[in-house]
Amino acid sequence: MPTDFFKPHQQVLEQAVAAAASREFWSPFSENPSPRVYGETANDDGRAAFDAYLGKEFPLELHEAHGATGVESSPFGFRLDISYPQVPVPALIEQSQHALDTWRTGGPRVWVGVCLEILHRLNKRSFEIAYAVQHTTGQGFMMAFQAGGPHAQDRGLEAVAYAWQEMARIPGRVLWEKPQGKHDPIKMEKKFTIVPRGVALVVGCSTFPTWNSYPGLFASLATGNTVIVKPHPAAILPLAISVQVAREVLTEAGFDPDVVQLAAHDVNDDTAQALALSPAVKIIDFTGSSANGEWLETHARQAQVYTEKAGVNQVIIDSADDFSSVARNLAFSFALYSGQMCTAPQNIYIPRDGIKTSDGHLSFDEAAQGLARAVEKLTSDPSKAVELTGAIQNEDTLQRIQRARALGLTVLSDSRRLTHPQFEQARVQTPLLLRADAGNPAISQEWFGPIVFVVATESTADSIKLAERSVIEHGALSLSAYTTNAAVAEHVQAAAERACVSVSLNLTGTVFVNQTAAFSDFHGTGANPSANAALSDSAYVANRFRVVQTRWHA
Amino acid sequence: MPTDFFKPHQQVLEQAVAAAASREFWSPFSENPSPRVYGETANDDGRAAFDAYLGKEFPLELHEAHGATGVESSPFGFRLDISYPQVPVPALIEQSQHALDTWRTGGPRVWVGVCLEILHRLNKRSFEIAYAVQHTTGQGFMMAFQAGGPHAQDRGLEAVAYAWQEMARIPGRVLWEKPQGKHDPIKMEKKFTIVPRGVALVVGCSTFPTWNSYPGLFASLATGNTVIVKPHPAAILPLAISVQVAREVLTEAGFDPDVVQLAAHDVNDDTAQALALSPAVKIIDFTGSSANGEWLETHARQAQVYTEKAGVNQVIIDSADDFSSVARNLAFSFALYSGQMCTAPQNIYIPRDGIKTSDGHLSFDEAAQGLARAVEKLTSDPSKAVELTGAIQNEDTLQRIQRARALGLTVLSDSRRLTHPQFEQARVQTPLLLRADAGNPAISQEWFGPIVFVVATESTADSIKLAERSVIEHGALSLSAYTTNAAVAEHVQAAAERACVSVSLNLTGTVFVNQTAAFSDFHGTGANPSANAALSDSAYVANRFRVVQTRWHA
Repeated sequence: MPTDFFKPHQQVLEQAVAAAASREFWSPFSENPSPRVYGETANDDGRAAFDAYLGKEFPLELHEAHGATGVESSPFGFRLDISYPQVPVPALIEQSQHALDTWRTGGPRVWVGVCLEILHRLNKRSFEIAYAVQHTTGQGFMMAFQAGGPHAQDRGLEAVAYAWQEMARIPGRVLWEKPQGKHDPIKMEKKFTIVPRGVALVVGCSTFPTWNSYPGLFASLATGNTVIVKPHPAAILPLAISVQVAREVLTEAGFDPDVVQLAAHDVNDDTAQALALSPAVKIIDFTGSSANGEWLETHARQAQVYTEKAGVNQVIIDSADDFSSVARNLAFSFALYSGQMCTAPQNIYIPRDGIKTSDGHLSFDEAAQGLARAVEKLTSDPSKAVELTGAIQNEDTLQRIQRARALGLTVLSDSRRLTHPQFEQARVQTPLLLRADAGNPAISQEWFGPIVFVVATESTADSIKLAERSVIEHGALSLSAYTTNAAVAEHVQAAAERACVSVSLNLTGTVFVNQTAAFSDFHGTGANPSANAALSDSAYVANRFRVVQTRWHA
Repeated sequence: MPTDFFKPHQQVLEQAVAAAASREFWSPFSENPSPRVYGETANDDGRAAFDAYLGKEFPLELHEAHGATGVESSPFGFRLDISYPQVPVPALIEQSQHALDTWRTGGPRVWVGVCLEILHRLNKRSFEIAYAVQHTTGQGFMMAFQAGGPHAQDRGLEAVAYAWQEMARIPGRVLWEKPQGKHDPIKMEKKFTIVPRGVALVVGCSTFPTWNSYPGLFASLATGNTVIVKPHPAAILPLAISVQVAREVLTEAGFDPDVVQLAAHDVNDDTAQALALSPAVKIIDFTGSSANGEWLETHARQAQVYTEKAGVNQVIIDSADDFSSVARNLAFSFALYSGQMCTAPQNIYIPRDGIKTSDGHLSFDEAAQGLARAVEKLTSDPSKAVELTGAIQNEDTLQRIQRARALGLTVLSDSRRLTHPQFEQARVQTPLLLRADAGNPAISQEWFGPIVFVVATESTADSIKLAERSVIEHGALSLSAYTTNAAVAEHVQAAAERACVSVSLNLTGTVFVNQTAAFSDFHGTGANPSANAALSDSAYVANRFRVVQTRWHA
């Protein structure tokens, strides 16, 4: 007898729908990795589970698996040596299509019930997933726990809530009566069936394998599609665990576990392209480089393609009450996971004549030095700093720091290697702060990693213009501004609304521009080159299913 | 003082939202062209208004108009000789962008209010529009009135209702309080602004200039975009009147009338392509040929492209209680506007061994002859028939009838020219019914116009397979089936759900497969090659606007 997973989670679902409407604070998955919340042994159990994977075949049985793959290596300095089953692309597609035959008949209640149960079980495995995220992405443990666990689960649930809401708007059966004056009305019965688009592909990234994959995975699954999860070869484990959980729940619900499959593959093989171009693949969710995202948008024309790509995030500094709290807040954003976040600020615009603060006028150089000092202070104690910066995910990012240094710009704060007290080999770096002029072409591209340009502009009006143009041309997932002047704040907002990027104003406390909260903050607007969709909103889910109706005389 | 148009129409809007949710019968715009509904002089006034346009410059003042265009000719046999102002593409774009600056600040209530008032005024001009539609498209007057007037207005209102509903879900301002255990909560204020995508382009067709254009026009306008309406050169007048009404309302609401512009242009010039490829154009709604629709999908990559293209609509006949009522219903669908509807049935599948009816077994030939007889009976009185068939919109369709005749297939009922009692020169034709075999390649393409293939299949199971494959490969906006067998009905439904096309079962009365009702029937599914969007649903509107948020410490 298959299990009904909807009922036990219905209340959470209804709360999620309400939260997405009110956009007030709400989260069902605690971000507090405390024994009181997750259980006394949760941390030890999670670490033990992670350790048990090392050097072994990952326990995931996939049909038609031939061979194995896996070369993951922790940015903290050791190889994971986990091997994953590898399924050829044609088999993945065929199995996904086959699983669709029965999964499509489940209907919204079953699809959503299964999703909610998967999320519930993922939450219980948050510590295990945290270690998996930490040692593939390089995130510090706290971020790996929060962003890789409960925050990712929140974003998954958010997508399910939107999907449920959209599907619930379609009535199942309707009697349609059209009056005919004195004659009897025309009566038609109509049945509306929600049908999935088909096979969905989720392309994961190496920095946020769960956070960036769960919205697409759950949006597609909750609307009746089958899903092939293609992890980045550098960050397979967190998604392998997630797929394992999904298949376990699907089996208990009476479905073919192939409704969700893992497409682990070798570095640089053509698995991603082959999957993306399969005529059966109707939906693709992608996070990664602009080049790969644009390739998908251009070539995978048979599919709906949702992409999150590169962008250039900017900060406009006009004036401040307390510049030291501005600098503290920004330094944190620069250092957090070494800028390896799609929302991390990169270009900081300060008028060349300086800014007004409540402590008087600050010259450009004083303000720039203030930022540099705040970074140095924040990273002065390596044992604390490493928890914030985590490690550099890959060599490319390390080299990018070198290339930025080689630009020949004035170094405000150099990137230093820090020694991690626990992991000697960890690639830990402090942020590199460079001084640039507004016309420098270097600032109009993304420098993914801990690389920041403090840019001298003509004036705040010029900063705003520059920021607006840059969002339109190069995209951005975040924009931040500091001003004590209401008119300037309005100008920034108007520019942001034209360029379509969200703004954080005067963040000086414990909220950072890099962070968004599920159910309240939209992640991205979907209308600038950094991303063609927002996580999550109606538009993100409403086209993943369609309605087929049948009508007949009543 | 600009007029607030929202308040007076709020109740209709709320009813429209409720109707789209219940999908029960509802229509605010009467389809009855009666003096009791529209006023004693409505018909005469409408005709007089139409007559007054003939041979003149159309009274529409567009900025930067250089020269004039217009070669419309009534399919009923006379030239309209109306000339329309022509605005160069760069000026249209620049004016649309300029108008966007203020229109975007209006917000949902204003945008929707303006749309509702435009629809209200269009309804009052339904007779004038009916004559304009009749003498550009060739529709009979009754269809021109209903489909060109109230039904088109219904579809426009439906799009506005969905747009309103989606926008209304976004709160304006929110206080976000995140608990911090024993500490004070983190408090953020958040403002959510709905922003349009930009300039929208609506590409009209020659057969349903209003019905097929209003959904896109109003979906884009209601979400804050400015709109350039590009009519088909053969059917400018109905959209010129619509744009005139829109500009009048916009002016009274205090906005730049260029929020809605008309892009009348010469036959075969490059206006459509130039507009479609403008970087400012972010949304395109298109109805027309598959070639042009696919060109837009491939090349207008900067825009969201919503297309309705060609398809092959099919009817599966398995069995019937009363075959004569089946034949009557289908004959009406064949003859209605001479098959020049995107929903008109083309391929009729009948097993070669015949079908069961309550009057006993009918051989394939008997069934095919039954259809032919029903067509002949329906068209036997030309004065009645012409009201149903209307006229053939263009020479290409006349030639298509010739090409179909030249296929060398058995003619079940030949297409005859009928003389219109009122318009001697009218291009009126009865439907051409041809007998074909299932393997004939001719049946796998659209033969737009009064051309029907009665196709012999191996069996009903074969008919269903053929229909499913054809929808997947060639697209379809409608599918119809006749069966007294519940299992067959289920197979048809399952095939339709896989291929993503809606089904009408056993239509034998006064509901026809060509017709869909706004607020209840989705027009198209948006998931087969005939159309990439359904009119209307959440997906059709939700991506025409985006949300930009601003957050700051409370």
